[in-house]
Amino acid sequence: MAADPKSGNLNENWNKTKGELRKAFSASSLSASVPEKRLLPSLETFANELGLQPNFNQKLGLHPDHEHLKYTNNIENDYIISMFVDIKGSTNLFKRYRPETVWIITNTIQRAAIHTCLIFGGYVHRLQGDGLFVYFGDKNTSTELSVKRALQFAGIFTYFVKTDLKQLFNEQGIEDIYTRIGIDLGYDRDVIWGMAGIGEISEVTTCSLHTSLASKMQSNAVSNGIVVGDHVKNEVIALSEFFTPVCQRTQNENDRYIFRIQDDNWNYTQYDFAWLPFLKKQDYIATDLHGDLQLKQKTISTFDRNINNLAPIAAISKPFYGFNEEK
Amino acid sequence: MAADPKSGNLNENWNKTKGELRKAFSASSLSASVPEKRLLPSLETFANELGLQPNFNQKLGLHPDHEHLKYTNNIENDYIISMFVDIKGSTNLFKRYRPETVWIITNTIQRAAIHTCLIFGGYVHRLQGDGLFVYFGDKNTSTELSVKRALQFAGIFTYFVKTDLKQLFNEQGIEDIYTRIGIDLGYDRDVIWGMAGIGEISEVTTCSLHTSLASKMQSNAVSNGIVVGDHVKNEVIALSEFFTPVCQRTQNENDRYIFRIQDDNWNYTQYDFAWLPFLKKQDYIATDLHGDLQLKQKTISTFDRNINNLAPIAAISKPFYGFNEEK
Repeated sequence: MAADPKSGNLNENWNKTKGELRKAFSASSLSASVPEKRLLPSLETFANELGLQPNFNQKLGLHPDHEHLKYTNNIENDYIISMFVDIKGSTNLFKRYRPETVWIITNTIQRAAIHTCLIFGGYVHRLQGDGLFVYFGDKNTSTELSVKRALQFAGIFTYFVKTDLKQLFNEQGIEDIYTRIGIDLGYDRDVIWGMAGIGEISEVTTCSLHTSLASKMQSNAVSNGIVVGDHVKNEVIALSEFFTPVCQRTQNENDRYIFRIQDDNWNYTQYDFAWLPFLKKQDYIATDLHGDLQLKQKTISTFDRNINNLAPIAAISKPFYGFNEEK
Repeated sequence: MAADPKSGNLNENWNKTKGELRKAFSASSLSASVPEKRLLPSLETFANELGLQPNFNQKLGLHPDHEHLKYTNNIENDYIISMFVDIKGSTNLFKRYRPETVWIITNTIQRAAIHTCLIFGGYVHRLQGDGLFVYFGDKNTSTELSVKRALQFAGIFTYFVKTDLKQLFNEQGIEDIYTRIGIDLGYDRDVIWGMAGIGEISEVTTCSLHTSLASKMQSNAVSNGIVVGDHVKNEVIALSEFFTPVCQRTQNENDRYIFRIQDDNWNYTQYDFAWLPFLKKQDYIATDLHGDLQLKQKTISTFDRNINNLAPIAAISKPFYGFNEEK
């Protein structure tokens, strides 16, 4: 029972912590501003613009296209994009804050990730501490469109953590929190869906080399980096400029391929994804006077546009405004 | 679509794979021998010996002691032992087998882990690919007993993967599959329980430095190794001989502590757990003539014992016999 730094002075630490956090994180304001089962106001508008209806009634480990596999031994093939989002650095929060406070911080980050994922049509398969394992792709969406949405979600969420969240944390003197993301695509024949586990201790999940590789690519990403596989890159040929083999960054040819089957002479390349230049080219993103990215409201009328002969940004909103009432 | 080694010769590979696997892994015999919602026969006897009633109706992400927190913003404190079990090397199975076959193999390993965890009174919190995140500890069990059961589960499962499973795989020419396990204990004040996520996209989970450290310790373990934290070691003083600081193995003093809060002069040590010597001292384990561990049947009557003036191993059974009918 001796090994707790805060055991001797609980009240002192607690009050100190509360004071430090009042500005950035207030449990009550956070609870109010990250509501359950509905989107943050700015994200709600954005979702409407994209024509997407986020589904908050999804269950973990039960992709809607494959839920009939639960409690069966059946398996089936279907393409999927697997993405591992890992939020790093949160363990160091325990150096400054009591567990109650770390809970609020990490839970808020995770809820932001869930919100954002749903907006882009993703499916949250598994919560992993302060990370997530999400799928993109379903029977009603083409592989190419699913890949694009996956890249958009990954970019927007990385931007959020790298900028808005970092700013919030730096004000509190907290060391960097950053994301690492790995994404890969398996085609129909590459991906088995089935129920893993026993009884209720189970999930409907994928068995695929490309799910495994997405997890490995996540661990190969730099801070705030996104690494993707060959299949992802090949689905979006027009975006080729945003992908460079990981070995170019590391200057180590061994890092070119994430997986090789030498008997078959099969080599699978991993790429760094230049998500910031990519985001800047999205038609729903504008760059403001400070160089910060903003979500555009696309409902600006053509009439207004023509008056100024410019593309006015009539109503811009930070994608994650609403997390901190005092910001 | 080009990057699949098996696309040109599906049938050839499929038949080859089926032939290779017939001996070790047959889908139908596996399904029959790893039944849902009941234990393997040998494990069932063993569970009865320990006086434990495995509960197959548990749900993931909903520890029975804390399920009332679901759909609330409430949090509460309660001690818990967090354990991350990672099965490494399974990605290489894709070099030899089609996804259907990898599915059978990894699902079987995971089911074995679930079975074994339940027998020792653990709770399966999350399935993670071919790994698991499990908790030990509940309101009816002392911290010390929960720690002992966690160490027993970790040891038995590691032994299974290191010996029985390895033998099965080596017969097929598959490179090593091995486990890495991290275990840590957080006391009441160290552990926050609450619902993470939103709506159904949620789990009742812990926020604790010691949950985070268990995950980090897992990645510091050697192949088939188990690393535990200070709190675990201190709960079982009588077992001190089985723990050595990780820095003794690595010969790097920086590896002594898994976490430090220098302002508080707080240092938290990580230990390698000598699980094989530990298992050999358990009264339900016997070593057979080949040096293999066997589960003893404790129901041998005192009468029988006395007749031979020996401790006969009247009925021994491999803990995981039943996975492979032909073995």
